[in-house]
Amino acid sequence: MAVLQTPPTSVGRTTTERVLLYTEEDPLVLASGSELGPVEVAYETYGKLSPQRDNVVFVCHALTGDAHAAGYRDDASKPGWWDNLIGPGKPLDTDRFFVICPNLLGGCQGTTGPLSTNPATGKPYGLDFPLLQMSDFVTVHRRLLEHLGIERLHAAVGGSLGGMQVLQWTLDAPSQVDNAVVVAASSRLTAQNIAFSAVAREAIMRDPDFQSGEYVGTDRAPHLGLSIARMMAHITYLSEEAMSEKFGRRLQGDEPPGSRMGLGVDFQVESYLNHQGSVFLDRFDALSYLYLTRSMDYFDVFADPGAPARIASGGTRFLVLSFDTDWRFDTAHSRDIVRTLAAHDVPVSFREIASPHGHDSFLLEVPEYHRTVATFLGRVHREVASAAGPA
Amino acid sequence: MAVLQTPPTSVGRTTTERVLLYTEEDPLVLASGSELGPVEVAYETYGKLSPQRDNVVFVCHALTGDAHAAGYRDDASKPGWWDNLIGPGKPLDTDRFFVICPNLLGGCQGTTGPLSTNPATGKPYGLDFPLLQMSDFVTVHRRLLEHLGIERLHAAVGGSLGGMQVLQWTLDAPSQVDNAVVVAASSRLTAQNIAFSAVAREAIMRDPDFQSGEYVGTDRAPHLGLSIARMMAHITYLSEEAMSEKFGRRLQGDEPPGSRMGLGVDFQVESYLNHQGSVFLDRFDALSYLYLTRSMDYFDVFADPGAPARIASGGTRFLVLSFDTDWRFDTAHSRDIVRTLAAHDVPVSFREIASPHGHDSFLLEVPEYHRTVATFLGRVHREVASAAGPA
Repeated sequence: MAVLQTPPTSVGRTTTERVLLYTEEDPLVLASGSELGPVEVAYETYGKLSPQRDNVVFVCHALTGDAHAAGYRDDASKPGWWDNLIGPGKPLDTDRFFVICPNLLGGCQGTTGPLSTNPATGKPYGLDFPLLQMSDFVTVHRRLLEHLGIERLHAAVGGSLGGMQVLQWTLDAPSQVDNAVVVAASSRLTAQNIAFSAVAREAIMRDPDFQSGEYVGTDRAPHLGLSIARMMAHITYLSEEAMSEKFGRRLQGDEPPGSRMGLGVDFQVESYLNHQGSVFLDRFDALSYLYLTRSMDYFDVFADPGAPARIASGGTRFLVLSFDTDWRFDTAHSRDIVRTLAAHDVPVSFREIASPHGHDSFLLEVPEYHRTVATFLGRVHREVASAAGPA
Repeated sequence: MAVLQTPPTSVGRTTTERVLLYTEEDPLVLASGSELGPVEVAYETYGKLSPQRDNVVFVCHALTGDAHAAGYRDDASKPGWWDNLIGPGKPLDTDRFFVICPNLLGGCQGTTGPLSTNPATGKPYGLDFPLLQMSDFVTVHRRLLEHLGIERLHAAVGGSLGGMQVLQWTLDAPSQVDNAVVVAASSRLTAQNIAFSAVAREAIMRDPDFQSGEYVGTDRAPHLGLSIARMMAHITYLSEEAMSEKFGRRLQGDEPPGSRMGLGVDFQVESYLNHQGSVFLDRFDALSYLYLTRSMDYFDVFADPGAPARIASGGTRFLVLSFDTDWRFDTAHSRDIVRTLAAHDVPVSFREIASPHGHDSFLLEVPEYHRTVATFLGRVHREVASAAGPA
């Protein structure tokens, strides 16, 4: 077998680190007041921390992301999920930036979540895991920074649920984030957004194999519910145009439709969805799906009328991006964020990027999108450099 | 208990009739070549058949409709599903028209479908029920007309799957339908349309209680799958605007959200969807859901290049309507129908109706929609009358 060659723009080999950030004795205090401990966090870093510790870019992942954002991990068959954005010469340029990406609290890829052991019972938390608010993700991110000896972020960057964490961060710690990149996100979900997640959760919780969340260690898990949830979500991640372009009404085989019409999988789009529903089971957990989608439902970053002014006090500069065919979080969501921030004199750049790929665009190599992020981070970087003046 | 008063614009008390249209010896020959018998059809009629038998309006119902389209049936707690459209003085004016509405083949409300007894086994067909094509619905509709001694239709009218049957009818029997009203329908589904139905079917067929379709007579039925299918479908029936207007982010109770956040039903939109998923179980069957949605997926009325010319040969006049917030079958679907028909000199009127209610609009009392249908049928009726000349 040939040794896998990493391309020159790759961050190369990476390893996921794990660190214990809270213990049972020194627990995480959640926004709800509940306590949680121990809390372990999985994270990766790319690039080098500058001696001044002023080149840190923090990546917040979306609903089903993980710490492996870029490069090649020995036990992973693919490069990280944002490998097209992170690397030498890429928009999140690892020749200049020190990039950190943790798995978020409540996740299932190395960070403490509902499948972790509840010290009170010695068994997985299941539904005894506390409900999480957006602030809780940010609190743990900040503790990770503390652990790494970092005080300030050059930038926090995230798409979808990741963008929501970035927004929340600028509210919870107004002066910690110099630049915020909020992609295909929302300041609060609409009824339709909530509805899609609600049906997904019902599919999971009504699955008899869910067993009230106590499926770990049994030989059953809510695969039916989780794969249906994922299939439904995938419809909302793609634009109608992209689906038509990619699959249209094409059937899988070559025979004319009449020759084998049936109730089973026949159209290519069905096969695609079934595949997506199936591979998801290998990498994601149903309880994390419940908890993380629920955190999104309740998120409403501007609910407190004082929130925008508090964000403004931090001086964070924002780049807000949407995609014209994204109907999961359409441009109206981004415009609401921009309007609210701008009304409070927060420096904010906004662009709606043309891309046929719907919500998924934030994960893809869309040239205008990447150029815009690179320019924003680059410009800002040069500004900082020039403000520092000649040595 | 007070006797229920029917309003003056109601067709009043109605009864669902049942008629045996095909027998085992004289079976229905399906478009696939398979044979099906016996076939019984449930239907209702409103108004009076004229002596010339020239005032017949045939209503084709949508996916989950039934024969009870108008008026008050003793065993039904609500008026028929299209009661706002059918009645004295209404667009489908029962003072002038004789309106017929059957439950379609493959349905589960009186007409032969997958739950009916397979004469070969003495048990319900289940998945041995043959796959149906749009033509098969039309064939049975036409046999019902024959049974009623009716040769021609003044109009065939239908929304969504109903509109597809109307289109197919004008192709299969080009000179039988004088006027066709096709509302919120499609000549063929897009990949996204198919995708939503595909996930719904997966939810049903993967439900362990589905038991390979042999659940009848057991104490289990695929309630999980069918209610998830219905909940998901309901999201696509409402516009995002309508959902925001109707539910927004409102919670069910009066407490502030923080006081009882949880994974269960909390937002009003969740409660609405759960209710819809639950009441659907009382009136619909999972196998019919599979078969009828599948017929829609394969439907492609203009697939044969000769189809539009054949439709044109019949002289049917069309009214094609869409709703501006319908994203299940958006206006592009209707425009495609109109463009194809018009290119073959078929007389076709088209209007996109402004309505906030999304796909569901075709079932609702949207004034411009009702006026347009009334005018189309009325104008046509007057034309017929004036063509007949003074007696």
